[in-house]
Amino acid sequence: MTLWARIDYGGQARIGVVEGDAIFLHEGDLFDSGAATGEIVPVAEAHWLTPTSPTKMVALWNNFHAAAEKNGWAIPAEPLYFIKTPNSFNAHGQQIRAPGAYDGRVFYEGELGVVIGKTCTAVPVESAGEYIFGYTCVNDVTALELLQRDPSFPQWTRAKNFDTFGVFGPVVATGLDPMALRVRTLVNGRERQNYGLDDAIFAPAELVSRISHDMTLEAGDIIACGTSLGVLPMKSGTTIEVAIDGVGVLRNQYV
Amino acid sequence: MTLWARIDYGGQARIGVVEGDAIFLHEGDLFDSGAATGEIVPVAEAHWLTPTSPTKMVALWNNFHAAAEKNGWAIPAEPLYFIKTPNSFNAHGQQIRAPGAYDGRVFYEGELGVVIGKTCTAVPVESAGEYIFGYTCVNDVTALELLQRDPSFPQWTRAKNFDTFGVFGPVVATGLDPMALRVRTLVNGRERQNYGLDDAIFAPAELVSRISHDMTLEAGDIIACGTSLGVLPMKSGTTIEVAIDGVGVLRNQYV
Repeated sequence: MTLWARIDYGGQARIGVVEGDAIFLHEGDLFDSGAATGEIVPVAEAHWLTPTSPTKMVALWNNFHAAAEKNGWAIPAEPLYFIKTPNSFNAHGQQIRAPGAYDGRVFYEGELGVVIGKTCTAVPVESAGEYIFGYTCVNDVTALELLQRDPSFPQWTRAKNFDTFGVFGPVVATGLDPMALRVRTLVNGRERQNYGLDDAIFAPAELVSRISHDMTLEAGDIIACGTSLGVLPMKSGTTIEVAIDGVGVLRNQYV
Repeated sequence: MTLWARIDYGGQARIGVVEGDAIFLHEGDLFDSGAATGEIVPVAEAHWLTPTSPTKMVALWNNFHAAAEKNGWAIPAEPLYFIKTPNSFNAHGQQIRAPGAYDGRVFYEGELGVVIGKTCTAVPVESAGEYIFGYTCVNDVTALELLQRDPSFPQWTRAKNFDTFGVFGPVVATGLDPMALRVRTLVNGRERQNYGLDDAIFAPAELVSRISHDMTLEAGDIIACGTSLGVLPMKSGTTIEVAIDGVGVLRNQYV
């Protein structure tokens, strides 16, 4: 298992491997990495970037049995998804900003992110794993009151894509079995979400296969697997942590 | 008025100005163009690329009074939009491909595209024009039967984002008054759409202002202004032309 980070180092985006309290920088980029350079940055001093620069994040709605049951949602016959766009992408440690153009409640959603490793079109589920580089933590921030504000058109795109609303990181973890992972979300240190990927309606490999039949996925693209129970609105000043054992802790403040 | 094209020239993406039957290549890119190089490519021999490489296309639903009236849609209080993602982008002259993973009807939608010229966040409508580089033709291809296939979640993202479904070009026209433009769509040469931008619910400058309050727009991003009456499904082999006088004709075959 390797934890790949991307940080700003002297004004350049550099990749590195996290081991304990240190990041060991490497040549190259995440999908074509070279040797360690000998440069070492303490984790505590790192300026984190999003670990990839996706062309898109494909994000699931209604993908966990527990949430479907509690909310009275039917189990979907196929993955139901929306897009998070590049303007929304936001790194570990950065602020999540309340929109100026919306004064309703804003919710966190802790999720597992699947990081695509190479161009991927219409792959069968059996070989989907070859296209998965690793996993990351996602906070799929949502301006929930926009969704149904217009009765004729649910505003998923708008509710999900304010600047800073597409949070992911801090690293990409490779070599994990995603079905063994649990997503926990801590709000000012208090656990509010705790669910296992084994409750997913569509597992990561299934999502990669099915979505790649609709749209070509590119290296660095993210599939956010959807959230489960425990979603709540954030107050200004709240610290949100999405913690996945084996992946890491994605920490941001809402302001 | 200038018509800017982007073409493949000896394996490189190059910009040029269209005058009559010729494209006069220039140094630089669309948003930082240099002098003409003296290289000239006949229009008939050009390998067209999309005129920009957007990070996103923001596309409007229900933005024309005539379509709203005929379909019984309420006039929206604010722009209602979805996203077209980079995997969907498709140039003049390229084929629009029927999805392998969907066997329902696929519709053309002829639209005006607003091309953003520089990074644009929360701009007032009065200065929105400063952020508009020009205008292009858009064919917002739609797998319409997906939209309501799941009763719990309208699948706008999926219906709009199959590979090759985000067609725009052939050029970006600068120096136009968009409110004087008419969009015509020809199906195998027969006119099926013909509507003026003066019927838009939200005009281009208003769209740039309002959408930029939700999400930062980047140079090259496109706002597709929505379509009006005359949308129909395409048969395999159909040639679709989106024609806007003063901008150009975007021609593609559906296969």
